Amino acid sequence: MAALKFDTKVFSPEKVDFAGSEEYIYRGGRDKYKLLPEAFKGIKKISFIGWGSQAPAQAQNLRESLEEVGSDIKVAVGLRKGSASEEEARACGFTEEAGTLGEVFDMVSTSELVILLISDAAQAKLYPRVLAAMKPGATLGLSHGFLLGVMQNDGVDFRDDINVVLNAPKGMGPSVRRLYQQGKSVNGAGINASIAVHQDATGNAADIAAAWAIGCGAPFAFGTTLESEYRSDIYGERCVLLGAVHGIVEGLFRRYVREGQSEEEAFKNSVESITGPITRIISREGMPAVYEALDAQGKKIFEKAYSASYGPARDICEEIYDDVASGNEIKSVVQAGERFDRFPMGKIDQTYMWKEVGTKVRAKRVEDQIPLHPFTAGVYVATMMATVDVLKSHGHPYSEICNESIIEAVDSLNPYMHARGVAFMVDNCSYTARLGSRKWAPRFDYILEQQAYVAIDNNEPLDPEVFSEFLRHDVHKALAACAAMRPPVDISVGGDDSNEGVGVGGARTEFRSTVAA
Amino acid sequence: MAALKFDTKVFSPEKVDFAGSEEYIYRGGRDKYKLLPEAFKGIKKISFIGWGSQAPAQAQNLRESLEEVGSDIKVAVGLRKGSASEEEARACGFTEEAGTLGEVFDMVSTSELVILLISDAAQAKLYPRVLAAMKPGATLGLSHGFLLGVMQNDGVDFRDDINVVLNAPKGMGPSVRRLYQQGKSVNGAGINASIAVHQDATGNAADIAAAWAIGCGAPFAFGTTLESEYRSDIYGERCVLLGAVHGIVEGLFRRYVREGQSEEEAFKNSVESITGPITRIISREGMPAVYEALDAQGKKIFEKAYSASYGPARDICEEIYDDVASGNEIKSVVQAGERFDRFPMGKIDQTYMWKEVGTKVRAKRVEDQIPLHPFTAGVYVATMMATVDVLKSHGHPYSEICNESIIEAVDSLNPYMHARGVAFMVDNCSYTARLGSRKWAPRFDYILEQQAYVAIDNNEPLDPEVFSEFLRHDVHKALAACAAMRPPVDISVGGDDSNEGVGVGGARTEFRSTVAA
Repeated sequence: MAALKFDTKVFSPEKVDFAGSEEYIYRGGRDKYKLLPEAFKGIKKISFIGWGSQAPAQAQNLRESLEEVGSDIKVAVGLRKGSASEEEARACGFTEEAGTLGEVFDMVSTSELVILLISDAAQAKLYPRVLAAMKPGATLGLSHGFLLGVMQNDGVDFRDDINVVLNAPKGMGPSVRRLYQQGKSVNGAGINASIAVHQDATGNAADIAAAWAIGCGAPFAFGTTLESEYRSDIYGERCVLLGAVHGIVEGLFRRYVREGQSEEEAFKNSVESITGPITRIISREGMPAVYEALDAQGKKIFEKAYSASYGPARDICEEIYDDVASGNEIKSVVQAGERFDRFPMGKIDQTYMWKEVGTKVRAKRVEDQIPLHPFTAGVYVATMMATVDVLKSHGHPYSEICNESIIEAVDSLNPYMHARGVAFMVDNCSYTARLGSRKWAPRFDYILEQQAYVAIDNNEPLDPEVFSEFLRHDVHKALAACAAMRPPVDISVGGDDSNEGVGVGGARTEFRSTVAA
Repeated sequence: MAALKFDTKVFSPEKVDFAGSEEYIYRGGRDKYKLLPEAFKGIKKISFIGWGSQAPAQAQNLRESLEEVGSDIKVAVGLRKGSASEEEARACGFTEEAGTLGEVFDMVSTSELVILLISDAAQAKLYPRVLAAMKPGATLGLSHGFLLGVMQNDGVDFRDDINVVLNAPKGMGPSVRRLYQQGKSVNGAGINASIAVHQDATGNAADIAAAWAIGCGAPFAFGTTLESEYRSDIYGERCVLLGAVHGIVEGLFRRYVREGQSEEEAFKNSVESITGPITRIISREGMPAVYEALDAQGKKIFEKAYSASYGPARDICEEIYDDVASGNEIKSVVQAGERFDRFPMGKIDQTYMWKEVGTKVRAKRVEDQIPLHPFTAGVYVATMMATVDVLKSHGHPYSEICNESIIEAVDSLNPYMHARGVAFMVDNCSYTARLGSRKWAPRFDYILEQQAYVAIDNNEPLDPEVFSEFLRHDVHKALAACAAMRPPVDISVGGDDSNEGVGVGGARTEFRSTVAA
């Protein structure tokens, strides 16, 4: 799978070298908004269908970007009649009166750009009707290649008289919105995105894709394909981005308590250590810097934890990739959606660890006193590297690998767990992500306890090559190249006692457990 | 899916009423062995291909049954050249000299009954060659409908000039062997089986299926279909038979320790309570008897634990059934087989709980002082009922439901966990079962902790209807009907310090982690 050079007329791609592999990127930023009207030529109405994680963020961002340059393109929202989200959408300024709020198929059939952001499960059910309702020559926008996976399972293709493009922000919706707002005064702030042109019926699909990404605030847009995107995305969130990090901290918390640490200490040394110093160091200086920040004794512990954890973590990562690539995981998500009416998703943060201990620890937190725990760091970085290596072995472009294994974790997701615990991170993501995290977190927990920690506790010999490979791995150079494109504004979101970045169109603290189409 | 009445000439089916649903069964027993030669008419050589969980047991049992009635049908074993199992097979009396040990395809092409007991993953790879090598009019014997699931995924059918029959003993191989041996002096001892005729090219396939089951020692053989069997089998072992019970005891052990119990107490109240009194009571008197055995206070705790656990456990059971029925689970098992060379299965019983605590508790065990813990009982029985109800909602026959949800657990599997811990139970089963147990155990653990125990600890209101349904459930009558067909000999297998029932052809204590074809 290779990243493609796009045929844009309005925006200019730049060639970038990621550790030897050449890829094309588009540079965004507020100074590019003036190009949006030309790139969106022929488009009078852009409709965002749905109101989940991404839609509130993207619709508001794109509307504000277009307003800033005086464009008269209408940004609208389509919801099913009687949707519980209507009120929220109105509170964000989308109204029936202005023609910017309406029923799903009314919006689909009257828009030149239809951005389908209903849940993956709902997409799987509704896509034949949505495709049939679109105007010839219109553009279907996806923020996720999931639908392609569904249609591959179903053995069908897109209509050939429409464009199909992708803009996949490399962060959950609330962070897309949050950074856009934080960055209003800083050119270049935002969440990076992947873009793809799956089908170009009108000859300007690539400009539409780039404009959509840049208009939503992406400082950089990286080229990919729909298939490469959905594989890496569904895979990454099941691995270190959400599932694995949840499983890791559950297991480490238990381990540290059994070793005699107080519960608060154990929480600090597991969850806080990852969401605090480890996340910060990786974001700014890369993975080897975590190791370098330790003293001699800490380095030894890190190396041991890394060497013992990499193999078991990779075992589960390989299984996840195979399940995603074979269509299994997509089929399971669709099936879960069909069970939601009887079995809504349950809460994951009402257990003692999160409810009692986590809340207390966060209330007393002194940010720069959070320990960089060498064992935790070794386990976490090993799992991150396992996530990287499986994508690499399957030929994904390095910009995608870095985003789906590292950058999204440290710049977008972990800060949410830091702010209010695990559900605030996991459940602010898509249904597909929330289901996947619930499914795979326990697998990482069990395999690390059964294999990695047992090997360490029994002083079993560990292969030194595993750790050498880490130190000399290409990904560090690729990440440095990506880091040059890192948005200059860190995300900031309110903790347990603050509503900064929380609320309508921002992050949620209560989560629906069933899909609203 | 309905159980079928079979067209047998040698054996006579009996009609049985399982809680209102009528099914047909065959009665086995040592007195029926004299019918084997007639039922196997035209068969000169029966080859068992492979040497995993089932083959050593079935091959030895059937050989001994045929010897007992002076039949000259040869029972042979087929292994790939250089297989690590050759020595074990020779030690069990299968030799090249006698023509009862040979290369796989040599045996396949020279036998009139080919019983394919290589691992499921190996079947998925080798079936085209095996089918091609069979003689016209020969019979393919399966102990599991897995291959049908694989062929459905592949979109292919069996050759129509061969018989395809099933004999699926309702217990792992070592227990099939162990009970056959224990029962040599007791007519009717053994492990019950399901049988099916998927394809009848010669007109006597049903007699062959029944003879195979009865010759291996099944006291009763229940009619089913290949599809119904593989669904219920793959599903059941992922639920309460292996996966769920493992996840339950891991979670309960942790919970009891956190509540202040000593580790040994916690192990007794979780693992020992299930494998001891709970298993014994269910086996002899059914599930409601567990509740009835408690005092008033205990009954309240059981009811609470049951009511809170049933829903979350059923959530995972539904997911498993959907994944099995859609072909996902089979595809995942095949994919795991392809990763075995790089990622062999790891051990699951080297953690502190099993290695340190479990071994100690078993060494000091006084059988009749093992506590019947009401909370543990409520969680376990709720999960068993969830396993039952999903099969029932999908129309499986009651004999199959009882076997795949209850009888196999209490009469065949739990005794192995009782003897030497979780791996001795899980890893004496098939690769498909071992993989599935590793995959789903952690899911039950997490969902029970996140939802059921949280609800109990927060004193959330519980739906009383859930528990009433349990008390008046049809399955208790069906199980009583099955109980009338329960083998009269309990399984007995050596604990940590005994080799009774352990060794060549019996249970193993060391497990291969990669598939031998």
